Amino acid sequence: MTRIAIAGAGLIGRAWSFVFARAGMEVAVWDANSEVLDAFPAAIAAMVDMTAAHGRAGNDPADLASRISIHSSLEEVLADADLVQESGPEKLDIKKRIFADLDRLTPPAAVIASSSTALMVSQYASELPGRARCLVAHPVNPPHLVPVVELSPGEFTDPETVDRAEAIYREAGQVPVRLTREIDGFILNRLQAVVLAESLRLIEEGIVTVDGLDDTIRHGLGRRWAFMGPMETISLNAPAGVADYLERYGPTMARLADDAARGEAFTKEAAAKVEAHFAGVPDTATSASRQAWRDEELAALDRHLIDRRMRRD
Amino acid sequence: MTRIAIAGAGLIGRAWSFVFARAGMEVAVWDANSEVLDAFPAAIAAMVDMTAAHGRAGNDPADLASRISIHSSLEEVLADADLVQESGPEKLDIKKRIFADLDRLTPPAAVIASSSTALMVSQYASELPGRARCLVAHPVNPPHLVPVVELSPGEFTDPETVDRAEAIYREAGQVPVRLTREIDGFILNRLQAVVLAESLRLIEEGIVTVDGLDDTIRHGLGRRWAFMGPMETISLNAPAGVADYLERYGPTMARLADDAARGEAFTKEAAAKVEAHFAGVPDTATSASRQAWRDEELAALDRHLIDRRMRRD
Repeated sequence: MTRIAIAGAGLIGRAWSFVFARAGMEVAVWDANSEVLDAFPAAIAAMVDMTAAHGRAGNDPADLASRISIHSSLEEVLADADLVQESGPEKLDIKKRIFADLDRLTPPAAVIASSSTALMVSQYASELPGRARCLVAHPVNPPHLVPVVELSPGEFTDPETVDRAEAIYREAGQVPVRLTREIDGFILNRLQAVVLAESLRLIEEGIVTVDGLDDTIRHGLGRRWAFMGPMETISLNAPAGVADYLERYGPTMARLADDAARGEAFTKEAAAKVEAHFAGVPDTATSASRQAWRDEELAALDRHLIDRRMRRD
Repeated sequence: MTRIAIAGAGLIGRAWSFVFARAGMEVAVWDANSEVLDAFPAAIAAMVDMTAAHGRAGNDPADLASRISIHSSLEEVLADADLVQESGPEKLDIKKRIFADLDRLTPPAAVIASSSTALMVSQYASELPGRARCLVAHPVNPPHLVPVVELSPGEFTDPETVDRAEAIYREAGQVPVRLTREIDGFILNRLQAVVLAESLRLIEEGIVTVDGLDDTIRHGLGRRWAFMGPMETISLNAPAGVADYLERYGPTMARLADDAARGEAFTKEAAAKVEAHFAGVPDTATSASRQAWRDEELAALDRHLIDRRMRRD
């Protein structure tokens, strides 16, 4: 039985708890804030209900919550953990403090993983005695509906730690992606950043509307990327494969990449233009209802893609 | 009854024929090569069979082919067209020649649209008497499974031409995206180019494997982009919307965009690394069977997304 400790039970910590419990693991949850813990059971129940409607609440939805225990003592949740998932605030001083506590209180054999998005493990764990068992395991929000998790070790992380983390996330039904070394933004946000920069530039210059930009992805590139990714996509876009593709289209693509927007595209003017568009979207009045819509669509898409993969195997 | 002329009946011209006939339009097809025309009916029949299995062959699959006529005379197909869809080779001298013919032979009221990917309409239509009715209507391959079509007018294109083209593509069930002015690569390939550049760089530097890169998109970013696009995605990634998102994450994203790969990432070494990966994919021995797999998945995803939209409305 794999035992998981959740340190920090906000939006991400909650969804992680659900992920591990769905896969049959024992989950012990802690948060510094008692109100967060009070709200926890209802949040899990809502996740069970929504995902069960798409057959994505695991084999025994009724028992899922019974595998999660809630604690106000950090020592208690760490006592017999195989993996600690830290999901605290994204602030360097706080990360340093919590990682020092986690390393001190967690049994030596356990993996300590952080959900951090923009901070790298070398920034807050490099001085710790147990730094070899520390790494980043960066999820997409929300991890129970989007399965990728980026595993980013520091120079000091034992490769065997990464192996164990990878095995646990895979057992939990996630899709771990290993980085061989640290890089700012990991993989996912580096790819997101270039798309956002070029998108904001095209919108700001008035070449395309916000909707037109989103349509180009959701009714265009996003259709193939949702099940193939960009490399498999180009492997099928020329008769003789990737080398053939890059020979035919590489020079054009290189020219476009050279001309692409950079950081200067993240302007207040671009933000205001995009903001104004969504303020006017009629059926999505409140952010909470739009997020609920997004999550429902993610669950339905996950179900669809799982069904298709089953057919392929 | 909308009448469409197809000039060039290769892979793209064929799929366009299917799109317009599926929507109930009359389609007249011409190609310079008689072997292409000979192969045409069987290709359409195969498209009908495959898409019908996903409920995406229109209201009367049995009659779809009866709305398509095949001709060896270009004059004949143009005679009473409302819109000409040109899908010839992507070479400037050939485009210039065919556009001169199309402008000369097509009734003045008809729209003339090119499927060209890398060439802009100003490069081959700016000298024509009828240049005001010429534009690019760039599809994704294959257009009957991926609905976006980018409408890129030249400076000389009459806005009313773009209006009429937009109405026809929308009536045909596609999702037209209007550019207000020409830009190299239009929107879609500009976005694809930045993703490819950064992907090839991360793979070439050995930070992530080819599969890891594709997993980051297909099990991560691609899940949201398949139904929202990148702008709606960020509008839901911070409590107070886009401006809030860009205030919180803009500086990080700008830093990542500044550090992103450019055209120099399109190297032979990167191509060889990606090529080697797909050469080893066991269940995808031949490109044709892999393309058939991709098309089947695109049709299934299209069906899924249409069903979900129906539920939303």
